[in-house]
Amino acid sequence: MRGKFIAIEGLEGAGKSNAQQVVSQLLTKQGLDIVQTREPGGTPIAEALRTLWKQGVDGEHTTDKAELLMMFAARTQLLETVIEPALTTGKWVVGDRHNMSSLAYQGGGRGLVGLVEQISHAILGEFEPDLTLYLDLDPEMGLARAKGRGQLDRIEQQHIAFFQRTRQRYLTLCQHHPKAVIINAAQSMEQVSEEIRQAVISFFNFAN
Amino acid sequence: MRGKFIAIEGLEGAGKSNAQQVVSQLLTKQGLDIVQTREPGGTPIAEALRTLWKQGVDGEHTTDKAELLMMFAARTQLLETVIEPALTTGKWVVGDRHNMSSLAYQGGGRGLVGLVEQISHAILGEFEPDLTLYLDLDPEMGLARAKGRGQLDRIEQQHIAFFQRTRQRYLTLCQHHPKAVIINAAQSMEQVSEEIRQAVISFFNFAN
Repeated sequence: MRGKFIAIEGLEGAGKSNAQQVVSQLLTKQGLDIVQTREPGGTPIAEALRTLWKQGVDGEHTTDKAELLMMFAARTQLLETVIEPALTTGKWVVGDRHNMSSLAYQGGGRGLVGLVEQISHAILGEFEPDLTLYLDLDPEMGLARAKGRGQLDRIEQQHIAFFQRTRQRYLTLCQHHPKAVIINAAQSMEQVSEEIRQAVISFFNFAN
Repeated sequence: MRGKFIAIEGLEGAGKSNAQQVVSQLLTKQGLDIVQTREPGGTPIAEALRTLWKQGVDGEHTTDKAELLMMFAARTQLLETVIEPALTTGKWVVGDRHNMSSLAYQGGGRGLVGLVEQISHAILGEFEPDLTLYLDLDPEMGLARAKGRGQLDRIEQQHIAFFQRTRQRYLTLCQHHPKAVIINAAQSMEQVSEEIRQAVISFFNFAN
Protein backbone atom coordinates (compact mmCIF):
# COMPACT_ATOMS: atom_id res chain seq x y z
CA MET A 1 0.00 0.00 0.00
CA ARG A 2 1.20 3.49 -0.88
CA GLY A 3 2.57 5.44 2.11
CA LYS A 4 1.41 8.86 3.26
CA PHE A 5 3.21 12.20 3.23
CA ILE A 6 2.97 14.44 6.29
CA ALA A 7 4.44 17.94 5.90
CA ILE A 8 5.37 20.15 8.86
CA GLU A 9 5.04 23.85 8.11
CA GLY A 10 5.65 27.09 9.98
CA LEU A 11 7.87 30.12 10.43
CA GLU A 12 11.43 29.96 11.75
CA GLY A 13 11.42 29.05 15.43
CA ALA A 14 7.92 27.54 15.39
CA GLY A 15 9.23 24.12 16.43
CA LYS A 16 9.28 22.20 13.14
CA SER A 17 12.22 19.96 14.14
CA ASN A 18 10.50 18.89 17.34
CA ALA A 19 7.26 18.30 15.46
CA GLN A 20 9.07 16.16 12.91
CA GLN A 21 10.44 13.98 15.74
CA VAL A 22 7.06 13.74 17.46
CA VAL A 23 5.34 12.63 14.27
CA SER A 24 8.13 10.24 13.34
CA GLN A 25 8.04 8.53 16.76
CA LEU A 26 4.27 8.20 16.61
CA LEU A 27 4.39 6.63 13.15
CA THR A 28 7.20 4.29 14.13
CA LYS A 29 5.13 3.14 17.14
CA GLN A 30 2.34 2.33 14.68
CA GLY A 31 4.79 -0.02 12.96
CA LEU A 32 5.28 2.19 9.90
CA ASP A 33 8.56 2.65 8.03
CA ILE A 34 9.36 6.34 7.82
CA VAL A 35 11.60 8.66 5.79
CA GLN A 36 12.40 12.16 7.04
CA THR A 37 13.02 14.99 4.56
CA ARG A 38 13.74 18.69 4.78
CA GLU A 39 13.17 21.44 2.25
CA PRO A 40 14.77 23.13 0.58
CA GLY A 41 17.27 20.27 0.52
CA GLY A 42 17.20 16.56 1.18
CA THR A 43 19.33 15.41 -1.79
CA PRO A 44 22.91 16.43 -2.67
CA ILE A 45 21.71 18.66 -5.52
CA ALA A 46 18.84 20.14 -3.49
CA GLU A 47 21.22 20.86 -0.59
CA ALA A 48 23.63 22.57 -3.01
CA LEU A 49 20.74 24.74 -4.24
CA ARG A 50 19.86 25.56 -0.61
CA THR A 51 23.45 26.63 0.10
CA LEU A 52 23.60 28.67 -3.10
CA TRP A 53 20.39 30.47 -2.19
CA LYS A 54 21.37 31.06 1.47
CA GLN A 55 24.96 32.18 0.88
CA GLY A 56 24.91 33.66 -2.61
CA VAL A 57 28.11 33.69 -4.70
CA ASP A 58 30.80 36.38 -4.63
CA GLY A 59 28.45 38.79 -2.88
CA GLU A 60 25.65 38.24 -5.40
CA HIS A 61 22.28 37.13 -4.03
CA THR A 62 19.41 35.54 -5.90
CA THR A 63 16.59 37.69 -7.22
CA ASP A 64 13.13 36.83 -5.87
CA LYS A 65 12.22 35.02 -9.08
CA ALA A 66 15.48 33.07 -9.21
CA GLU A 67 15.00 32.09 -5.55
CA LEU A 68 11.51 30.83 -6.33
CA LEU A 69 12.73 28.72 -9.25
CA MET A 70 15.62 27.28 -7.23
CA MET A 71 13.18 26.31 -4.46
CA PHE A 72 11.05 24.45 -6.99
CA ALA A 73 14.11 22.86 -8.60
CA ALA A 74 15.15 21.53 -5.18
CA ARG A 75 11.56 20.43 -4.48
CA THR A 76 11.05 18.48 -7.71
CA GLN A 77 14.48 16.86 -7.31
CA LEU A 78 13.53 15.68 -3.79
CA LEU A 79 10.02 14.67 -4.81
CA GLU A 80 11.11 12.65 -7.82
CA THR A 81 14.14 10.95 -6.27
CA VAL A 82 13.20 10.54 -2.58
CA ILE A 83 9.55 11.23 -1.68
CA GLU A 84 7.78 9.48 -4.56
CA PRO A 85 9.96 6.33 -4.44
CA ALA A 86 9.43 6.14 -0.65
CA LEU A 87 5.64 6.51 -0.92
CA THR A 88 5.52 3.96 -3.74
CA THR A 89 7.25 1.37 -1.58
CA GLY A 90 4.80 1.96 1.29
CA LYS A 91 6.96 4.20 3.45
CA TRP A 92 5.57 7.24 5.23
CA VAL A 93 7.39 10.52 4.65
CA VAL A 94 7.65 13.22 7.33
CA GLY A 95 8.82 16.45 5.73
CA ASP A 96 10.24 19.56 7.40
CA ARG A 97 8.53 21.96 4.96
CA HIS A 98 7.05 21.34 1.51
CA ASN A 99 5.14 23.36 -1.07
CA MET A 100 3.09 25.42 1.38
CA SER A 101 6.37 27.13 2.37
CA SER A 102 6.72 28.56 -1.14
CA LEU A 103 3.07 29.55 -1.26
CA ALA A 104 3.48 31.34 2.10
CA TYR A 105 7.03 32.77 1.92
CA GLN A 106 7.40 33.62 -1.77
CA GLY A 107 3.66 34.07 -2.32
CA GLY A 108 2.64 35.91 0.85
CA GLY A 109 5.98 37.23 2.06
CA ARG A 110 7.40 38.40 -1.27
CA GLY A 111 4.07 39.12 -2.93
CA LEU A 112 4.52 36.67 -5.81
CA VAL A 113 1.26 34.77 -5.24
CA GLY A 114 0.25 34.43 -8.89
CA LEU A 115 3.71 33.39 -10.03
CA VAL A 116 4.14 30.82 -7.24
CA GLU A 117 0.76 29.29 -8.02
CA GLN A 118 1.59 29.02 -11.72
CA ILE A 119 4.96 27.37 -11.12
CA SER A 120 3.52 25.14 -8.41
CA HIS A 121 0.74 23.92 -10.67
CA ALA A 122 3.10 23.44 -13.63
CA ILE A 123 5.62 21.40 -11.64
CA LEU A 124 3.60 19.52 -9.02
CA GLY A 125 0.22 19.18 -10.72
CA GLU A 126 -2.21 17.67 -8.21
CA PHE A 127 0.49 16.33 -5.85
CA GLU A 128 0.21 17.52 -2.24
CA PRO A 129 0.85 16.15 1.25
CA ASP A 130 -1.79 13.84 2.72
CA LEU A 131 -1.62 15.97 5.86
CA THR A 132 -0.01 19.33 6.58
CA LEU A 133 0.60 20.38 10.19
CA TYR A 134 1.04 24.15 10.33
CA LEU A 135 2.70 25.36 13.55
CA ASP A 136 1.24 28.82 14.03
CA LEU A 137 3.30 31.34 15.98
CA ASP A 138 3.66 35.10 16.18
CA PRO A 139 6.78 35.95 14.12
CA GLU A 140 8.33 37.99 16.92
CA MET A 141 8.17 35.01 19.26
CA GLY A 142 9.55 32.74 16.53
CA LEU A 143 12.46 35.07 15.83
CA ALA A 144 13.27 35.35 19.52
CA ARG A 145 13.38 31.55 19.73
CA ALA A 146 15.50 31.30 16.57
CA LYS A 147 17.88 33.95 17.91
CA GLY A 148 18.42 31.93 21.05
CA ARG A 149 19.59 29.15 18.79
CA GLY A 150 22.40 31.08 17.09
CA GLN A 151 22.97 33.58 14.30
CA LEU A 152 20.03 34.53 12.12
CA ASP A 153 20.42 33.62 8.45
CA ARG A 154 19.51 35.83 5.52
CA ILE A 155 15.81 35.11 5.46
CA GLU A 156 15.54 35.44 9.24
CA GLN A 157 17.12 38.86 9.16
CA GLN A 158 14.52 40.28 6.89
CA HIS A 159 11.98 42.62 8.22
CA ILE A 160 9.37 41.32 10.60
CA ALA A 161 6.61 42.56 8.25
CA PHE A 162 7.73 39.92 5.77
CA PHE A 163 7.04 37.23 8.36
CA GLN A 164 3.70 38.77 9.27
CA ARG A 165 2.64 38.52 5.62
CA THR A 166 3.97 34.97 5.47
CA ARG A 167 2.03 33.96 8.60
CA GLN A 168 -1.16 35.52 7.24
CA ARG A 169 -0.76 33.56 4.01
CA TYR A 170 -0.16 30.32 5.95
CA LEU A 171 -3.36 30.91 7.94
CA THR A 172 -5.38 31.68 4.81
CA LEU A 173 -4.05 28.58 3.08
CA CYS A 174 -4.85 26.34 6.06
CA GLN A 175 -8.20 27.71 7.15
CA HIS A 176 -10.28 26.01 4.48
CA HIS A 177 -7.94 23.19 3.56
CA PRO A 178 -9.30 19.73 4.47
CA LYS A 179 -5.79 18.28 4.65
CA ALA A 180 -4.26 20.97 6.88
CA VAL A 181 -4.37 21.32 10.67
CA ILE A 182 -3.35 24.50 12.49
CA ILE A 183 -1.38 23.83 15.69
CA ASN A 184 -1.00 26.59 18.28
CA ALA A 185 2.79 26.69 18.61
CA ALA A 186 2.80 29.37 21.30
CA GLN A 187 2.05 26.73 23.95
CA SER A 188 4.70 24.82 25.89
CA MET A 189 6.64 22.22 23.92
CA GLU A 190 4.80 19.43 25.80
CA GLN A 191 1.40 20.89 24.93
CA VAL A 192 2.39 21.40 21.29
CA SER A 193 3.73 17.85 21.05
CA GLU A 194 0.53 16.43 22.52
CA GLU A 195 -1.66 18.49 20.16
CA ILE A 196 0.41 17.21 17.21
CA ARG A 197 0.04 13.59 18.37
CA GLN A 198 -3.72 13.94 18.75
CA ALA A 199 -4.04 15.61 15.33
CA VAL A 200 -2.18 12.79 13.57
CA ILE A 201 -3.99 10.01 15.50
CA SER A 202 -7.35 11.54 14.73
CA PHE A 203 -6.61 12.36 11.07
CA PHE A 204 -5.45 8.82 10.23
CA ASN A 205 -7.73 7.02 12.70
CA PHE A 206 -4.82 5.40 14.51
CA ALA A 207 -5.55 3.33 17.64
CA ASN A 208 -4.50 5.55 20.56
CA MET B 1 17.27 55.05 -26.19
CA ARG B 2 16.78 51.49 -25.04
CA GLY B 3 19.33 49.05 -26.50
CA LYS B 4 18.54 45.87 -28.42
CA PHE B 5 19.08 42.23 -27.47
CA ILE B 6 20.46 39.85 -30.09
CA ALA B 7 20.51 36.16 -29.13
CA ILE B 8 22.66 33.57 -30.89
CA GLU B 9 21.11 30.10 -30.87
CA GLY B 10 22.10 26.67 -32.14
CA LEU B 11 23.32 23.18 -31.27
CA GLU B 12 26.77 22.46 -29.85
CA GLY B 13 29.43 23.03 -32.48
CA ALA B 14 27.25 25.26 -34.66
CA GLY B 15 29.61 28.24 -34.23
CA LYS B 16 27.87 30.36 -31.60
CA SER B 17 31.11 31.80 -30.17
CA ASN B 18 32.27 32.95 -33.59
CA ALA B 19 28.82 34.40 -34.32
CA GLN B 20 28.87 36.31 -31.03
CA GLN B 21 32.20 37.87 -32.01
CA VAL B 22 31.04 38.72 -35.53
CA VAL B 23 27.89 40.44 -34.24
CA SER B 24 29.77 42.23 -31.47
CA GLN B 25 32.36 43.62 -33.90
CA LEU B 26 29.66 44.75 -36.29
CA LEU B 27 27.76 46.56 -33.52
CA THR B 28 30.93 48.15 -32.15
CA LYS B 29 31.71 49.45 -35.66
CA GLN B 30 28.26 51.06 -35.64
CA GLY B 31 29.35 52.97 -32.53
CA LEU B 32 27.19 50.96 -30.15
CA ASP B 33 28.15 49.94 -26.61
CA ILE B 34 27.78 46.20 -26.24
CA VAL B 35 27.52 43.64 -23.46
CA GLN B 36 28.15 39.95 -24.13
CA THR B 37 26.34 37.26 -22.14
CA ARG B 38 26.18 33.50 -22.13
CA GLU B 39 23.46 31.16 -20.90
CA PRO B 40 23.14 29.30 -18.74
CA GLY B 41 25.48 31.56 -16.79
CA GLY B 42 26.68 35.12 -17.00
CA THR B 43 26.47 36.05 -13.30
CA PRO B 44 28.19 34.33 -10.33
CA ILE B 45 24.94 32.66 -9.23
CA ALA B 46 23.95 31.69 -12.76
CA GLU B 47 27.42 30.22 -13.37
CA ALA B 48 27.14 28.24 -10.12
CA LEU B 49 23.80 26.87 -11.34
CA ARG B 50 25.43 25.94 -14.67
CA THR B 51 28.22 24.05 -12.88
CA LEU B 52 25.73 22.31 -10.59
CA TRP B 53 23.69 21.19 -13.57
CA LYS B 54 26.69 20.08 -15.66
CA GLN B 55 28.61 18.26 -12.91
CA GLY B 56 25.89 17.13 -10.50
CA VAL B 57 26.77 16.61 -6.83
CA ASP B 58 28.15 13.39 -5.30
CA GLY B 59 27.11 11.41 -8.36
CA GLU B 60 23.57 12.78 -8.32
CA HIS B 61 22.32 14.45 -11.50
CA THR B 62 19.37 16.79 -11.93
CA THR B 63 16.03 15.41 -13.01
CA ASP B 64 14.67 16.89 -16.26
CA LYS B 65 12.25 19.12 -14.34
CA ALA B 66 14.93 20.32 -11.90
CA GLU B 67 17.24 21.06 -14.84
CA LEU B 68 14.50 23.11 -16.49
CA LEU B 69 13.89 25.16 -13.36
CA MET B 70 17.60 25.74 -12.78
CA MET B 71 17.94 26.99 -16.37
CA PHE B 72 15.13 29.48 -15.79
CA ALA B 73 16.58 30.50 -12.40
CA ALA B 74 19.88 31.28 -14.13
CA ARG B 75 18.04 33.06 -16.95
CA THR B 76 15.95 35.34 -14.74
CA GLN B 77 19.00 36.14 -12.59
CA LEU B 78 20.95 37.19 -15.71
CA LEU B 79 17.98 39.01 -17.22
CA GLU B 80 17.18 41.01 -14.09
CA THR B 81 20.74 41.87 -13.05
CA VAL B 82 22.62 42.16 -16.37
CA ILE B 83 20.50 42.21 -19.54
CA GLU B 84 17.67 44.53 -18.44
CA PRO B 85 19.99 47.11 -16.80
CA ALA B 86 22.18 47.11 -19.94
CA LEU B 87 19.24 47.57 -22.31
CA THR B 88 17.82 50.32 -20.09
CA THR B 89 21.05 52.29 -20.32
CA GLY B 90 21.11 52.00 -24.11
CA LYS B 91 23.62 49.17 -24.44
CA TRP B 92 23.17 46.38 -26.96
CA VAL B 93 23.36 42.85 -25.59
CA VAL B 94 24.74 39.94 -27.61
CA GLY B 95 23.82 36.67 -25.94
CA ASP B 96 25.26 33.21 -26.50
CA ARG B 97 21.88 31.44 -26.05
CA HIS B 98 18.66 32.65 -24.44
CA ASN B 99 15.13 31.31 -23.99
CA MET B 100 14.89 29.54 -27.35
CA SER B 101 17.51 27.09 -26.03
CA SER B 102 15.10 25.93 -23.33
CA LEU B 103 12.21 25.77 -25.78
CA ALA B 104 14.35 23.65 -28.14
CA TYR B 105 16.44 21.51 -25.75
CA GLN B 106 14.06 20.91 -22.86
CA GLY B 107 10.94 21.32 -24.99
CA GLY B 108 11.93 19.49 -28.18
CA GLY B 109 14.81 17.35 -26.94
CA ARG B 110 13.34 16.19 -23.64
CA GLY B 111 9.70 16.37 -24.69
CA LEU B 112 8.63 18.90 -22.06
CA VAL B 113 7.10 21.40 -24.53
CA GLY B 114 4.02 22.28 -22.48
CA LEU B 115 5.94 22.64 -19.22
CA VAL B 116 8.67 24.80 -20.78
CA GLU B 117 6.08 27.09 -22.33
CA GLN B 118 4.25 27.49 -19.02
CA ILE B 119 7.42 28.31 -17.07
CA SER B 120 8.69 30.55 -19.84
CA HIS B 121 5.46 32.53 -19.92
CA ALA B 122 5.25 32.75 -16.11
CA ILE B 123 8.82 34.01 -15.71
CA LEU B 124 9.54 36.05 -18.84
CA GLY B 125 6.09 37.27 -19.82
CA GLU B 126 6.39 39.06 -23.17
CA PHE B 127 10.16 39.57 -22.99
CA GLU B 128 12.11 38.17 -25.94
CA PRO B 129 15.21 39.07 -27.96
CA ASP B 130 14.83 41.76 -30.61
CA LEU B 131 16.58 39.39 -33.00
CA THR B 132 17.49 35.71 -32.73
CA LEU B 133 20.11 34.27 -35.09
CA TYR B 134 19.71 30.49 -35.23
CA LEU B 135 22.77 28.70 -36.60
CA ASP B 136 21.31 25.61 -38.23
CA LEU B 137 23.53 22.54 -38.51
CA ASP B 138 23.07 18.80 -38.76
CA PRO B 139 23.73 17.43 -35.23
CA GLU B 140 26.27 14.87 -36.45
CA MET B 141 28.38 17.61 -38.03
CA GLY B 142 28.03 19.73 -34.89
CA LEU B 143 29.12 16.91 -32.61
CA ALA B 144 32.11 16.13 -34.82
CA ARG B 145 33.15 19.79 -34.59
CA ALA B 146 32.62 19.85 -30.82
CA LYS B 147 34.61 16.63 -30.43
CA GLY B 148 37.55 18.20 -32.23
CA ARG B 149 37.45 20.87 -29.53
CA GLY B 150 37.88 18.53 -26.54
CA GLN B 151 35.85 16.23 -24.32
CA LEU B 152 32.10 16.14 -24.76
CA ASP B 153 30.11 17.24 -21.73
CA ARG B 154 27.04 15.50 -20.36
CA ILE B 155 24.53 17.00 -22.74
CA GLU B 156 26.80 16.43 -25.73
CA GLN B 157 27.17 12.77 -24.88
CA GLN B 158 23.48 12.12 -25.07
CA HIS B 159 22.05 10.28 -27.99
CA ILE B 160 22.03 11.94 -31.35
CA ALA B 161 18.25 11.54 -31.56
CA PHE B 162 17.97 14.07 -28.76
CA PHE B 163 19.79 16.63 -30.89
CA GLN B 164 17.70 15.78 -33.95
CA ARG B 165 14.55 16.55 -31.94
CA THR B 166 16.17 19.73 -30.61
CA ARG B 167 17.11 20.88 -34.13
CA GLN B 168 13.60 20.16 -35.40
CA ARG B 169 12.15 22.26 -32.58
CA TYR B 170 14.57 25.13 -33.32
CA LEU B 171 13.50 25.09 -36.99
CA THR B 172 9.80 25.03 -36.09
CA LEU B 173 10.26 27.91 -33.65
CA CYS B 174 12.18 30.00 -36.20
CA GLN B 175 10.23 29.33 -39.36
CA HIS B 176 7.33 31.64 -38.66
CA HIS B 177 8.99 33.95 -36.16
CA PRO B 178 9.37 37.52 -37.45
CA LYS B 179 12.32 38.15 -35.10
CA ALA B 180 14.32 35.02 -35.95
CA VAL B 181 16.70 34.40 -38.85
CA ILE B 182 17.96 30.92 -39.78
CA ILE B 183 21.64 30.88 -40.77
CA ASN B 184 23.06 27.89 -42.66
CA ALA B 185 25.94 26.95 -40.38
CA ALA B 186 27.17 24.11 -42.59
CA GLN B 187 28.98 26.62 -44.80
CA SER B 188 32.59 27.74 -44.31
CA MET B 189 33.21 29.99 -41.34
CA GLU B 190 33.76 32.95 -43.70
CA GLN B 191 30.45 32.35 -45.46
CA VAL B 192 28.60 31.93 -42.15
CA SER B 193 30.16 35.12 -40.77
CA GLU B 194 29.16 37.08 -43.87
CA GLU B 195 25.60 35.74 -43.78
CA ILE B 196 25.36 36.80 -40.11
CA ARG B 197 26.65 40.30 -40.90
CA GLN B 198 24.17 40.73 -43.73
CA ALA B 199 21.30 39.48 -41.57
CA VAL B 200 22.04 41.96 -38.77
CA ILE B 201 22.65 44.90 -41.15
CA SER B 202 19.41 44.21 -42.99
CA PHE B 203 17.32 43.57 -39.85
CA PHE B 204 18.33 46.82 -38.15
CA ASN B 205 18.76 48.87 -41.36
CA PHE B 206 22.39 49.69 -40.60
CA ALA B 207 24.44 51.56 -43.20
CA ASN B 208 26.65 48.92 -44.85
